[in-house]
Parts: sequence; structure tokens; C-alpha cells
Amino acid sequence: MAVEAFLNSSKLLQHWPSCLLGLLLVLAIKYVLNQRKKSSKNYSTDRDGDIETEFEEEARGDLQPALEEKPHVQFVPGQTLNPNGARRFLELVRGRRSIRSFSPLTKPSLGVIEDCIRAAGTAPSGAHTEPWTFCVVEEASVKQSVRAIVEHEEQINYNKRMHPQWVTDLRPLQTNHVKPYLTDAPYLILIFKQTYGTAKDGRRKTHYYNEISTSISAGILLCSLQAAGLSSLVTTPLNCGPALRELLGRPVNEKLLILLAVGYPTDDCKVPDLKRKRLDEILVKY
Amino acid sequence: MAVEAFLNSSKLLQHWPSCLLGLLLVLAIKYVLNQRKKSSKNYSTDRDGDIETEFEEEARGDLQPALEEKPHVQFVPGQTLNPNGARRFLELVRGRRSIRSFSPLTKPSLGVIEDCIRAAGTAPSGAHTEPWTFCVVEEASVKQSVRAIVEHEEQINYNKRMHPQWVTDLRPLQTNHVKPYLTDAPYLILIFKQTYGTAKDGRRKTHYYNEISTSISAGILLCSLQAAGLSSLVTTPLNCGPALRELLGRPVNEKLLILLAVGYPTDDCKVPDLKRKRLDEILVKY
Repeated sequence: MAVEAFLNSSKLLQHWPSCLLGLLLVLAIKYVLNQRKKSSKNYSTDRDGDIETEFEEEARGDLQPALEEKPHVQFVPGQTLNPNGARRFLELVRGRRSIRSFSPLTKPSLGVIEDCIRAAGTAPSGAHTEPWTFCVVEEASVKQSVRAIVEHEEQINYNKRMHPQWVTDLRPLQTNHVKPYLTDAPYLILIFKQTYGTAKDGRRKTHYYNEISTSISAGILLCSLQAAGLSSLVTTPLNCGPALRELLGRPVNEKLLILLAVGYPTDDCKVPDLKRKRLDEILVKY
Repeated sequence: MAVEAFLNSSKLLQHWPSCLLGLLLVLAIKYVLNQRKKSSKNYSTDRDGDIETEFEEEARGDLQPALEEKPHVQFVPGQTLNPNGARRFLELVRGRRSIRSFSPLTKPSLGVIEDCIRAAGTAPSGAHTEPWTFCVVEEASVKQSVRAIVEHEEQINYNKRMHPQWVTDLRPLQTNHVKPYLTDAPYLILIFKQTYGTAKDGRRKTHYYNEISTSISAGILLCSLQAAGLSSLVTTPLNCGPALRELLGRPVNEKLLILLAVGYPTDDCKVPDLKRKRLDEILVKY
């Protein structure tokens, strides 16, 4: 065979068994190293693949809990909306709608926004890590920069990154990459999840379930805004996280989860004619 | 060399150039196939790696939105808690605590739980997909099965899967793998996120941001339970999702997000002596 003749003419190739053995050795070392890496990450891996937490390797005897250990105290029940608290709360949140036309002329006081964020901060969190940061943007120039970043990325999203089905699914909501509400709304609230924190002794502190915890906190925030008579729009701007994080000078452990526009609707504000699912479509009894 | 002599004695190895060419060909084909797979998943991949959505390939001209396209309607503001709505809501949710001692003797009516889930169902969701299922477990034998599954997995979690730091971080909360609240609490609510749905025409419907949406809905549910004077415990049982999904006969597109125990506290119920972060630790102004 011509190929064999050609290959045999090379000095290097004549020593192929040695080369092959060397290659096998390299592959074997790589495999062993990979296995070791895998087994060191074996902790806390959920079968669903949902949960991923990383821990710095350290001496086992040296472990301290992130929270102080002290005696538990008697539980004291808080306020309720009773009588008929569940129904009265339902009547409150049932009226919440996402709006996209904010009046630039009417502005709630910052104190109201602060109370809403205090409420959001009561959310439960994995091992009480409270892994959230709420950035409240009131300054016009910063809102303008946020809008520029979001519109730039969203134009690429709508044209290239989003699947045509996604763009089609958004058509009934009449959204596109132009986002006047980002400068019209008196406040933007950018909610960051802290993917990890720093303990008092300077070590990295794991924030268990930080996305779920921060989203729950966002749910409480929405109720709170509704209670205060404010409207909002929940958005999750695709690919804008890193640029917005840099704009606001937030550290690398924080990742943008939700961008909320907050304010009062314009007089002619319109909303999609949406129905919500019936109870029997979302509730199953056992 | 002895090795060379041994290798040369094999008939197969004498034809190594052909074998090598064959191997290279296989690797090349594998590489090309992988690249094609990558580029077909190029849509909707977030730079942060947070968002992953999959679409069935189909003819572009054939796309229909999941929602009906109809004219938008005038926005009508809903109820509020004003005057001082934000402050009054804060006073309500500030009193919420996660409890672990539920009274098995006092039981809220199912109607109250239903209203709370109606409230949760008002949450916003990506492209209004409403990607949540609430399984309410009242039946003692089902609660017993849930407890058996969770305690079995949690024992493995505490002993093997969770990093010692995680177990240490949970020590101040005095939790372990024994979970009496799963049978004491009059209701368990298992919240599933629907990772995808089915459109009217039978095609797979993508559920954008289903984890964030469902977690927001859980946040609204917590507020609602508090309004009704009910206490709860939010848990995210590691590795129990598939077994609990099967126990409740839920379809494969649903993944367990949160398991909630709901009811009234025992008289001697104790809670960890936790402080929440101050406002200036969670709020940044711009």
C-alpha cells in the first residue's frame, strides 16, 4: 500500500509503539485527574442537576457555622389579615398586572420603596444566608445607561439569540427591544442574587439555593408594591447581567436575576387581555 | 526493544496505519456532529449560563404564539392596603417565621389553602406560561410516604452528599434528617415547576424562566399563608424530587422545587434566634 510505504518512510512513525504507549499514559493520567476532580465535587450534587454548591477545601475539624449558635426562642405569632385573611389577600394580589406604560410625572417617595424592600428582606433563605441585593435606581442618567445596555442586548436577542418561537410567543404581549419604561418609570429595582458570600473570618460562604431564595423575595416585593398601590414590570433581560453589574459596580459574586420597573401607570395604560389558569389547572389534591 | 518485538508479532498491529486512519475518521465525524449540535442550540443561551431553553425544530413559517393575539385592554388598578400600604404590608410579613413544630390537632379549612394557592397563581411568568403545579397533601398515608422518602434521602444527604460545611451551617437551625413536621403539619404543599408544557396543537411549549416564575409564585404563597394566620416551613429536599414526583403521579416535565409544610404552631414552638440583615445591607441606591 502506498500509504503504508509513505508512513514507513518517516523515522518518527517507525517508533510508533513507543509513541502509542506515551499517548496512552497521558490519557490515563488525564482520566485519573478527572475522576479525582469529580469525586471532590461529589457533595451536594442533586440528582436533578438543580443544585450546585462549591466549598473551599479545608480541614474538617476547623468548621464553623455561618450563623451564631444560640438557644432557640419561643415563637410569637405575627400579624394577619384575618378575619378572611386568605380571601382579603387574594383580592389584593389578584389586581396586580405587569404594566409597560409608566407615568414619568408621578413618583412615589423613596421611603415607600424602602419599606417594600424591607418586606422583601423578610423572605426565607437557605441556611438564612439572605443572598440578595436590591439596587434602586432613581437617577435619570443611570436609568438612561441601564436602558442603553438593555436595548443594545435586546436588539441582538430578538434578532439572533432568541429562537423564532420565543419571539412569536412574545408577540401577543406586544414587546420588542425598545424599552421606554426603563427611563419613564420613576424607579428601577435591579435584584441581584449573591451566588456566594464572605464569612466573618474572610472565608467564602456558600449561599444555598440563592436563586430560589432571591426569587421568593422578589415575589414578596411584588405583593408589597401592590399593597402600596404601585405597579411594576418584572423583566429578566437576557445577556445584560454582566454589563449591568459593572454599571452598578456590584461585585462578581452577584448575578442579575430580575430587573423591575416600578411606578404609576399612565392614564391610557393598556395591558394584554390575559386570563389566568383556573384553580383546578394548578392545584392537585391528595 | 522487547516491547516493539512483541507488538510487531501481532498481525493486527502490523496494519496500524489503516487502523489509525479509521480512528481519525471516526473522531472527525464525531467532532462535526458535536459542532452541529452546538450550533442548533445557539438560541437563547445566556452569557451567564443561567437560561437554557430548548425548542423543537420546525418550519419557520408555521410558528404560532402560545397565547391568543387580541387587542390590549385598558388597565384597571386593583386594590391596595393604602393608606400606608407599604408599611402595613411590612408589619404583616415581618412576623413570618419558618417553624418546625406543627400542631397535628388544629387544621385550617381546605378553602383557605385554596385561596392561598389562587393568590400564588397570580404571579407573573415568562410569556405568561404559568409554569407551576401545587400538590396539596392532606391524606395521612400520603404524608407518611412523603416523610419516608424525604427521611431516607436526607439521611444519605447529611451523612454523605452534603459537604461537612453545609451540615455545620445548618447546626444553628437544629435540623437533621428526622422530619416529624412532614406528618404533623395538616397540609403539605409540593410546588413543582413545569420545565415545559404542551400547546393546544400538541407541540412542546417552552416555559421560559420556569424556576424564577415558580419561586416568585411561592413568595406570594408565603405572604398569603401569613395573611391567613398560617405558619409554614419552606424546604428544598435534596435528591427527593424524582421519588416524590412518582409518588404523586406527576408527569416528567414537572420538577419538585419546594416542599412546604403548612399549619399552626404547637404551643411550645421554638424558633432560632435569628436577626435579619439591616436595610443598608441589602439596599444600594443610585
